[in-house]
Amino acid sequence: MTTSDYGRVFSALREGCGDEWNAYTHHDFVERLGDGSLPIASFEHYLIQDYVFLIHFARAWSLGVIKAETLDEMKICASTVDALINHEMSLHVKTCAARGIDEAALFAAREEVANLAYTRYVMDAGLQGDFLDLIAALAPCCFGYGEIGLRLAGAEARSTHYADWIDTYAGDEYQRVMISIGEMFDAAVFRRLGPDFQTSPRWARLQTRFTTATELEVGFWEMGLRGA
Amino acid sequence: MTTSDYGRVFSALREGCGDEWNAYTHHDFVERLGDGSLPIASFEHYLIQDYVFLIHFARAWSLGVIKAETLDEMKICASTVDALINHEMSLHVKTCAARGIDEAALFAAREEVANLAYTRYVMDAGLQGDFLDLIAALAPCCFGYGEIGLRLAGAEARSTHYADWIDTYAGDEYQRVMISIGEMFDAAVFRRLGPDFQTSPRWARLQTRFTTATELEVGFWEMGLRGA
Amino acid sequence: MTTSDYGRVFSALREGCGDEWNAYTHHDFVERLGDGSLPIASFEHYLIQDYVFLIHFARAWSLGVIKAETLDEMKICASTVDALINHEMSLHVKTCAARGIDEAALFAAREEVANLAYTRYVMDAGLQGDFLDLIAALAPCCFGYGEIGLRLAGAEARSTHYADWIDTYAGDEYQRVMISIGEMFDAAVFRRLGPDFQTSPRWARLQTRFTTATELEVGFWEMGLRGA
Amino acid sequence: MTTSDYGRVFSALREGCGDEWNAYTHHDFVERLGDGSLPIASFEHYLIQDYVFLIHFARAWSLGVIKAETLDEMKICASTVDALINHEMSLHVKTCAARGIDEAALFAAREEVANLAYTRYVMDAGLQGDFLDLIAALAPCCFGYGEIGLRLAGAEARSTHYADWIDTYAGDEYQRVMISIGEMFDAAVFRRLGPDFQTSPRWARLQTRFTTATELEVGFWEMGLRGA
Repeated sequence: MTTSDYGRVFSALREGCGDEWNAYTHHDFVERLGDGSLPIASFEHYLIQDYVFLIHFARAWSLGVIKAETLDEMKICASTVDALINHEMSLHVKTCAARGIDEAALFAAREEVANLAYTRYVMDAGLQGDFLDLIAALAPCCFGYGEIGLRLAGAEARSTHYADWIDTYAGDEYQRVMISIGEMFDAAVFRRLGPDFQTSPRWARLQTRFTTATELEVGFWEMGLRGA
Repeated sequence: MTTSDYGRVFSALREGCGDEWNAYTHHDFVERLGDGSLPIASFEHYLIQDYVFLIHFARAWSLGVIKAETLDEMKICASTVDALINHEMSLHVKTCAARGIDEAALFAAREEVANLAYTRYVMDAGLQGDFLDLIAALAPCCFGYGEIGLRLAGAEARSTHYADWIDTYAGDEYQRVMISIGEMFDAAVFRRLGPDFQTSPRWARLQTRFTTATELEVGFWEMGLRGA
Repeated sequence: MTTSDYGRVFSALREGCGDEWNAYTHHDFVERLGDGSLPIASFEHYLIQDYVFLIHFARAWSLGVIKAETLDEMKICASTVDALINHEMSLHVKTCAARGIDEAALFAAREEVANLAYTRYVMDAGLQGDFLDLIAALAPCCFGYGEIGLRLAGAEARSTHYADWIDTYAGDEYQRVMISIGEMFDAAVFRRLGPDFQTSPRWARLQTRFTTATELEVGFWEMGLRGA
Repeated sequence: MTTSDYGRVFSALREGCGDEWNAYTHHDFVERLGDGSLPIASFEHYLIQDYVFLIHFARAWSLGVIKAETLDEMKICASTVDALINHEMSLHVKTCAARGIDEAALFAAREEVANLAYTRYVMDAGLQGDFLDLIAALAPCCFGYGEIGLRLAGAEARSTHYADWIDTYAGDEYQRVMISIGEMFDAAVFRRLGPDFQTSPRWARLQTRFTTATELEVGFWEMGLRGA
């Protein structure tokens, strides 16, 4: 995989993001997921917070259905909401259940500030701006996890400790969804900003949305490590 | 079926709605759907507008995912969005395709005022109020179509002209979804207003939401007839 | 005054709107306001509905504060909300009070469909799109009333029957506010679409927002006449 | 002043908040504002972040105009937006200008996570719930600053270092606004939950909104201190 598999717009935003993208996708939390050295307590803490994250992330994708202007945009957003609530969250539920934490407890978990800040920022990006502002803020999580999953899955010295997590994001299903989101994002940007989207006066703001969400991802990993 | 199959809250709102409920569910448009005397031009006009309606109705159910407070509320709303976009709308697409109208044309159809008024009212009910305000405004369409479908399907002198339409709403799949929405609505009201919900100071406003949406349904049928 | 006093963007949208703009600003209701032949019952009916309209119009301008990206955009929107609630509505309250209708009755007036359709459309334009989508839908009412006021105030054979209404919209205060909204709208469009805004891929949609709101204005006058 | 000056609902929420209320209103940052020992760099850092906070706080109060159900609720919210944008923020602008920081720089200041988390949480509380959910999340900042201002202004060993800040919040204008917000909040709660509002099934959630916002206030002071 190259990053361009997720589309031209994502490639441009990823590059415009600078070092921050690396700080997120190669964060210590990520590296230790890959080599298996991440304490299980950190992982569990992360997983509980991430469940709450997904609740609000699904709410933000629902805002995408509201803000969509084409049938294709609506369909992708609606499918993503469904996939998040009925599929991605089940990994969390299953893993946590095995450790004696049930879904009601997950749903009621106390949300940390780093977590709350991230999802509410995305939500408000959508409320304040248009469909592009929303997708630009949703993109770092979606595509970043896709990149991380693929990289860790392809690593030579791969640990099996967190194989379930890695396989979820490296897996065909997740990757296919990301590719279709990337295509939809490209089409949405072309439709509103034209093919030379980077010359649009709006580009700087979309980049800011993307970069801020990426920084909030870094804060999320930090929170995961602190939980240990 | 009795109306109480869709839950206690719906029964109370339906009763509080008075004659307006009957004006909606026994509208001339409905009766003529049942006896087959509805001009095909009226039906087609209705179907095209209803397609546009479903687009915005799906947007309003997406607002339900955003406003939900429990996992069950989220799941029901997310499933309904998915069912609307990926299933109910396909009846419209299929029927219209048989008449040479493709989905792009449907999506771009000029929305009439009676149509626009209805869905934007529901949307704004959700923006202004909480989850209950939204569901109260969504309820007449959902449950009313369920009632109409069952009644027409059970009629003695049943015409086969509009059997596809009738079967869609009388069918097990639609009815099952309505029952689960009814259960969710009951639980949502109990959770926020308590078991004696009709004594809550908020009840009158929820009734107004439901009644206004019912009136807008009457206007929608009128629009259908005018289209002839 | 020429229409360009309200800015370049408004001029472009007004022109792009075609005959619909004339249908709105020279509607029979308007002409009869000018020559004094409008039945008082029609005017009263209009005034009551317009009071309810202003409630929701103020809500839509509040959405402008939420969607603004610059301090200037925020300030103009916040001032407009304040002007609507604390000034423009007082004309309605005063006029209605003289006819024995108090403000509580106005606030509780039954909203007609043509009224509801309009304001909820504007609101949803803002929820679905960005600041420009919202302002494009708010513009026809603001600037159209300014144009109508000036034209009627300058008419040779001017009746004094509805002088208060005409003076409100022809008056310096209202005109000054419109000019500042026009400047803000120009700046908002330049900021997001650039100086050649009409070549932006988004222009067609903004034009649709403006044109649809103009059509809904025509429906509003029709409602006024029907009330007679 | 006693806390009940801001109304019965606030008193109940304040009590239900437990130690967290004290952690906020007697935070080290506050105490050092009072005795003048707060480093000027901390104060400046706080002031810049607080300017950005007020931008988003005004956006959240604008959401109040959208969610209001009575004319009085609308008027109070609209006045508060106006007061925030055109008055309270001018203290910040004036103070910062004296230190060579202009308003454009303030508007563009980089928002810290503790800041962003707070205002977006309030915004989303309004989007997810109804008017009460929003006001419950807005209340701790409003009334807490009122309490802090009065207490510091009345302190025996009062420093004059931060007198402008203290006088703003202890002053009659701010206090009068708080009293009217408190009355509006009481009326809004009585209207929706009845006079025995604490027995409503919704009360626990409103308390959570209030308590979470209070915790986010503590985080805001921490951020202020860190800035030193």
